[in-house]
Amino acid sequence: MTWTGKRVLVTGGLGFLGSNLTRALVAEGATVRVLDALLDLYGGNRFNLEGVDAQVFVGDIRDADVVSRAVEGVDVVFHIAAQTSHVDSMSDPYTDLDMNCRGNLIVLDAVRRQGARLVYAGTRGQYGRLAYVPVDEKHPSNPTDIYGIHKQAAEQQCFLWGRVHGFPVTSLRINNTYGPRHQMKHGKYGILNWFIRLAMENRPITVYEPGQQLRDYNYIDDVTEAFLLAGSRNEAVGEAFNLGSGSSIRFVDLVDEIVKAAGTGKRVMIPWPKDREVIEVGDYLADISKIEQFLGWRPRVGLEDGLARTVAFYQAHQEEYWS
Amino acid sequence: MTWTGKRVLVTGGLGFLGSNLTRALVAEGATVRVLDALLDLYGGNRFNLEGVDAQVFVGDIRDADVVSRAVEGVDVVFHIAAQTSHVDSMSDPYTDLDMNCRGNLIVLDAVRRQGARLVYAGTRGQYGRLAYVPVDEKHPSNPTDIYGIHKQAAEQQCFLWGRVHGFPVTSLRINNTYGPRHQMKHGKYGILNWFIRLAMENRPITVYEPGQQLRDYNYIDDVTEAFLLAGSRNEAVGEAFNLGSGSSIRFVDLVDEIVKAAGTGKRVMIPWPKDREVIEVGDYLADISKIEQFLGWRPRVGLEDGLARTVAFYQAHQEEYWS
Repeated sequence: MTWTGKRVLVTGGLGFLGSNLTRALVAEGATVRVLDALLDLYGGNRFNLEGVDAQVFVGDIRDADVVSRAVEGVDVVFHIAAQTSHVDSMSDPYTDLDMNCRGNLIVLDAVRRQGARLVYAGTRGQYGRLAYVPVDEKHPSNPTDIYGIHKQAAEQQCFLWGRVHGFPVTSLRINNTYGPRHQMKHGKYGILNWFIRLAMENRPITVYEPGQQLRDYNYIDDVTEAFLLAGSRNEAVGEAFNLGSGSSIRFVDLVDEIVKAAGTGKRVMIPWPKDREVIEVGDYLADISKIEQFLGWRPRVGLEDGLARTVAFYQAHQEEYWS
Repeated sequence: MTWTGKRVLVTGGLGFLGSNLTRALVAEGATVRVLDALLDLYGGNRFNLEGVDAQVFVGDIRDADVVSRAVEGVDVVFHIAAQTSHVDSMSDPYTDLDMNCRGNLIVLDAVRRQGARLVYAGTRGQYGRLAYVPVDEKHPSNPTDIYGIHKQAAEQQCFLWGRVHGFPVTSLRINNTYGPRHQMKHGKYGILNWFIRLAMENRPITVYEPGQQLRDYNYIDDVTEAFLLAGSRNEAVGEAFNLGSGSSIRFVDLVDEIVKAAGTGKRVMIPWPKDREVIEVGDYLADISKIEQFLGWRPRVGLEDGLARTVAFYQAHQEEYWS
């Protein structure tokens, strides 16, 4: 399958994952629509698609009418719009449920009526605290926050609805991702990008002691490539795939890499705050052999290279992301 | 712990599981409140608590005000109110989500403010199609219907909220249950009870061919006993327990037992309907060794005895349940 002439909808398409995917789809020759609610504090930013030939619907996935219109006539839907803050899911589980489960059902209803193909943006948070590392797709789901619980339920809604109503579904269980076009206003989602801003502004980056937990990061272009494969390959249908880098890095070392890439900033160690302890998931490393085997995907951009590209992007476009 | 003097709330307390539990709690000396929305077609029936000294709040778990008032001052909450039709969850997943996940969050918020102990009525439907039989509590959750997906998410909400906000939580993953005080107006929930009505009215009982799937049934008094243990024993805190009979019966044989107990009715075999195939979960048998080990629970009422008691109850009170 080629993307040329394909009609595609990207929900959350003005956000980080969605806008990078939209740019790639347009470059591949697809006709792309974007649905984004541009909610305050969320990742949507019109600059993310500046100069890109995509039709933008400003609307919420919880509005069945706008979702219906956005999905009409489309071949493939990438459903990326979501509440994505772990912390906010704990302080306001109702909004998380409303967006990530009820909104998901609304998208599914439209996809079902249209008979489109669906790619769902899942998360490593569906696993929660790991029973073993590296985590494969068969690992049980024991989320440590409301966000993970609801994202897991929504993924199950997708596969069930696809099976019952006969449309193809793929889920990518997305790892921590960083790079250009991420929101840089606060650290609620995408802590790595937030740290990049702190370093670029020569501010201290606080790390909870001892910061030895293992983390796994992907550069955005690799995630975009995985989306393109997930939305086009036959082998992807009915499957959930982990994304990951194939190797992990200690949190303190990650911060040092950021400081090195920015050329400014510094690492400061502080005690672990009591209210964050219960949702800390421990070490994380994804087993990415399934997506390599099924779709031939492998991450290509290493951390040093990815951080350098990210810093360069925000140096060039700081005014579009800082405020 | 004894129930004497304990203040207890039972949500769904006018329904099948809830009213039988309420009667047992009152008999044990507890002061019992009931919250029930008495929704059309659901299992709530005022006759279920006739002559029972319990305070009834007529209200919906989705109404935060009434839930707050019902939970205030209570020691233990048994949260049983739910949308329980597998089929309805597939035709209207929004209502299922609203009751079984959003309503659950509302109950959890009240329990948290009160600092009460919580027992959640889970379901075997959380497992879905079984990877192995008998199913133990570590079996992965792969629900085959929306009901199972949302009940699983709600159970995870309960354990997470209990851990984060410091109140004790237990879940019973309830098996097919039959007996007195079940609604008898239709077969959407509790097919066994519906079959009892058909037999008592000397009508044919249709079984999808070949009817060889294994099923596991509990008599209501055994389930009530499990609730009492789950709400009182220290060993129950933080745990999920399967209920089951310890043995399974083929569906055709079950129907023959019902016909025998009623003394009327007959079994008729028909082809499996296309729209039910996708949500059929296959053979089911619960491993009940965990609850036996932790709480000393074991089912005591066999199928023949339970069916005889059930038929006798509805013969005596037919006018309260048939219309």
